[in-house]
Amino acid sequence: MKKIANCILLVSLVMSSSVVLAQDMRKTDSLMLAGMSYDILNNGKAYENLRYLCKSIGPRLSGSPQAQQAVEATARMLREAGADTVYLQPCMVPHWVRGQKERAAVHYGDKQRALNVCALGMSVGTGLQGMQAAVIEVPDFAALEKMPDAAVKGKIVFFNYAMRPELIGGGYGDAVRYRSGAPSAAAKKGAIAVMIRSVTHALDNNPHTGSTRYDTTVKKIPAFACSTMDAEWLHQLLQQEKNVQLSLMSDCRQLPDTESFNVVGEIRGSTLPEEVIVAGGHLDSWDLAEGAHDDGTGCMQSIEMLRAIKATGQRPKRTIRAVMYMNEENGLAGGNAYAKLATGKHIFAIESDAGGFGVNTIGISGSDRQYEHCKQWEPLVRPYQVYEISKGGGGADIGPLRQSQQGIVLSSINPNSQRYFDHHHAPNDVFETVNRRELELGAFAMAAICWLVSEYGVQ
Amino acid sequence: MKKIANCILLVSLVMSSSVVLAQDMRKTDSLMLAGMSYDILNNGKAYENLRYLCKSIGPRLSGSPQAQQAVEATARMLREAGADTVYLQPCMVPHWVRGQKERAAVHYGDKQRALNVCALGMSVGTGLQGMQAAVIEVPDFAALEKMPDAAVKGKIVFFNYAMRPELIGGGYGDAVRYRSGAPSAAAKKGAIAVMIRSVTHALDNNPHTGSTRYDTTVKKIPAFACSTMDAEWLHQLLQQEKNVQLSLMSDCRQLPDTESFNVVGEIRGSTLPEEVIVAGGHLDSWDLAEGAHDDGTGCMQSIEMLRAIKATGQRPKRTIRAVMYMNEENGLAGGNAYAKLATGKHIFAIESDAGGFGVNTIGISGSDRQYEHCKQWEPLVRPYQVYEISKGGGGADIGPLRQSQQGIVLSSINPNSQRYFDHHHAPNDVFETVNRRELELGAFAMAAICWLVSEYGVQ
Repeated sequence: MKKIANCILLVSLVMSSSVVLAQDMRKTDSLMLAGMSYDILNNGKAYENLRYLCKSIGPRLSGSPQAQQAVEATARMLREAGADTVYLQPCMVPHWVRGQKERAAVHYGDKQRALNVCALGMSVGTGLQGMQAAVIEVPDFAALEKMPDAAVKGKIVFFNYAMRPELIGGGYGDAVRYRSGAPSAAAKKGAIAVMIRSVTHALDNNPHTGSTRYDTTVKKIPAFACSTMDAEWLHQLLQQEKNVQLSLMSDCRQLPDTESFNVVGEIRGSTLPEEVIVAGGHLDSWDLAEGAHDDGTGCMQSIEMLRAIKATGQRPKRTIRAVMYMNEENGLAGGNAYAKLATGKHIFAIESDAGGFGVNTIGISGSDRQYEHCKQWEPLVRPYQVYEISKGGGGADIGPLRQSQQGIVLSSINPNSQRYFDHHHAPNDVFETVNRRELELGAFAMAAICWLVSEYGVQ
Repeated sequence: MKKIANCILLVSLVMSSSVVLAQDMRKTDSLMLAGMSYDILNNGKAYENLRYLCKSIGPRLSGSPQAQQAVEATARMLREAGADTVYLQPCMVPHWVRGQKERAAVHYGDKQRALNVCALGMSVGTGLQGMQAAVIEVPDFAALEKMPDAAVKGKIVFFNYAMRPELIGGGYGDAVRYRSGAPSAAAKKGAIAVMIRSVTHALDNNPHTGSTRYDTTVKKIPAFACSTMDAEWLHQLLQQEKNVQLSLMSDCRQLPDTESFNVVGEIRGSTLPEEVIVAGGHLDSWDLAEGAHDDGTGCMQSIEMLRAIKATGQRPKRTIRAVMYMNEENGLAGGNAYAKLATGKHIFAIESDAGGFGVNTIGISGSDRQYEHCKQWEPLVRPYQVYEISKGGGGADIGPLRQSQQGIVLSSINPNSQRYFDHHHAPNDVFETVNRRELELGAFAMAAICWLVSEYGVQ
């Protein structure tokens, strides 16, 4: 009994001392986070930096002059944020250009009506002479598959697949299959062009672009998206009219690949500088708008994370890096280049690429042990309206690190997603739709998790 | 030992059977919630009803013709939603009118500049002749208190108290003390009028109104709010210029109290109809905008809650009521009337009056036992991005029920609050700023908790 009693005493001593230690750590962390939050919400630079990126530079598709301006501007912002070092990582990016504004019109009887359309990114163009053919509506891939080739050959296929309202988090993933897959599915059946319903819940006049892709085995046909209101109108028309034709013109084309850059800024760690924590967003945006939410906010939050940590005067134990990845939208050249070129053992990579709306959770992808390790920080971030450290996180640009960095934890800040696809890849993705405090609280969430990982690692 | 073993066996039998029962219940509830969510997101009426309330009726301050139109419109909406009975509850409401648009200008040297101002609700007016006097800026109540009366007498006090950025949930509660208390604090010192900085984080040109109040012991002086940008400008000016005067004109006045109504619709419970669950928002709004977020969304969510439950074809065990309370903004006559007039034993009252943004939590105020009882439903609502059933809930209109209904649980759906005060009581609280899906997911959260309480009570 004495042995057991001693054992219990020992355990309870160890436990109580570790509880005390844990409590002290918690208090220190809590104060650190409170300081960063105060600073970000009172002295934050993310909002004004975003204004510059959106309003003074604007759309910045890979290969464009604006993309290069964005590289230079964010390098400056990182220096101003207090990064120890700022450098560029070269990568070759595709250079797709939209050319002249697209035109589309529906012709029926002796009438015609213009549609709000855009070419899908990476699409081939029709050429300035355009094309005209009968249009057939199909609700989904399965319906097209069932049609005889003769019913499709020489026609324009209109995929009217709506983002499903009942899918609360997964509607985009479901519907975006049509943006990527529609041209090749239609071409296989002999269609000469394809138009999809824009991938958005919003019912409005904005066409949404975004990358499409072509199977190498079939002909590349021009691909368009029309606004959801036009999709609804055309759907109605096709119930009533026979012999409906669609005319389409797009001037887009692929130019030779061009050199571009990731922008990297870092604060070197004090005691474990070879261990790296990386936080980022993507610097390129589609060409139709300002790329405010996609992904200006992610970039500005990453720079703000660095600034806020630097501003505390505390040097992190591990190296913390902010990265603006180039070319997420149509190639992922930047994400791949980073994974290849980056130095240091990466233990944690976080991305913000789901819009600058109010962050609800921080997502973690790693082993169960790593997840539980991060999960214990939940009470520290809960006062800042981060409700959960949840399972599952990551982002397109940091995906390649999974292969090159063994044991890395991938993470993301996850905002409320309901408004995001109203703006995504559309002309209304503009600065004015970003709320300063939502943006800043997202930067805080990123700074908090990066700081905690820099203090305690990931397992 | 046998006794203990039997006891353990008994407990484990009871536990396992109750686990099975709980699992069955959970499955049924889960299906019920999935059905309601599908229906609300696909066939919901809240958004189009809100459009009507905002665009066809518009501002609806208590006593106005539009408030009466809103009573009639929401009674119709409740009938269309399938309420078993719809009725009105009379209440006498204050009838404050703004009159002619306010004017304000700053005079310094030989210059003058107009300010964006509005009278605070319930303020006395200056009369059409207006007033002009020297303006003095004070940062807060304490600073005013320290000033000699002679420095304030005959002047206009400008309270430039900014909503504190670092307060993430509590900034409004802190700053709104100036909207309520400024006129009497200034009048005690002999000021002839008062102007506050609008209670908002946003830096823009919108003045925000809202009720002020007068201590009965001091003179009622006219009270205004200016936009935050004007507050910043005036602050700068007062650093540089001496002899700065402010001219103010407001035409507002108090008319005799008038009769108005709460609008009530209910579905009668099947087995416990005398037990009542009530969900609501307030129907009146300030007169400067459409009252979209404050509180058109709360009203429309409450009607949608009723519609969605009715649409399942399942009758709730307890009576569920949707109430549009009149006069939350400047009197609470509706909330008081409801508490006085409503029949039935109320076990649960929920209010939505924090904007129609994405709901993150459902707040519960009750005993610890009641909270734990509700908390067990968290896994049922988590798939719908409700992250927590949290401690602390309620609303102004349901507050009076706490006195009259013993053991009642007060609750609220709690959206992300960062955007709310950008619009609150200001000309930009319009329909266009409401996101359909955020509105609908809020209605779902309300429907889910009302349904669960109707099935299982509150303890």
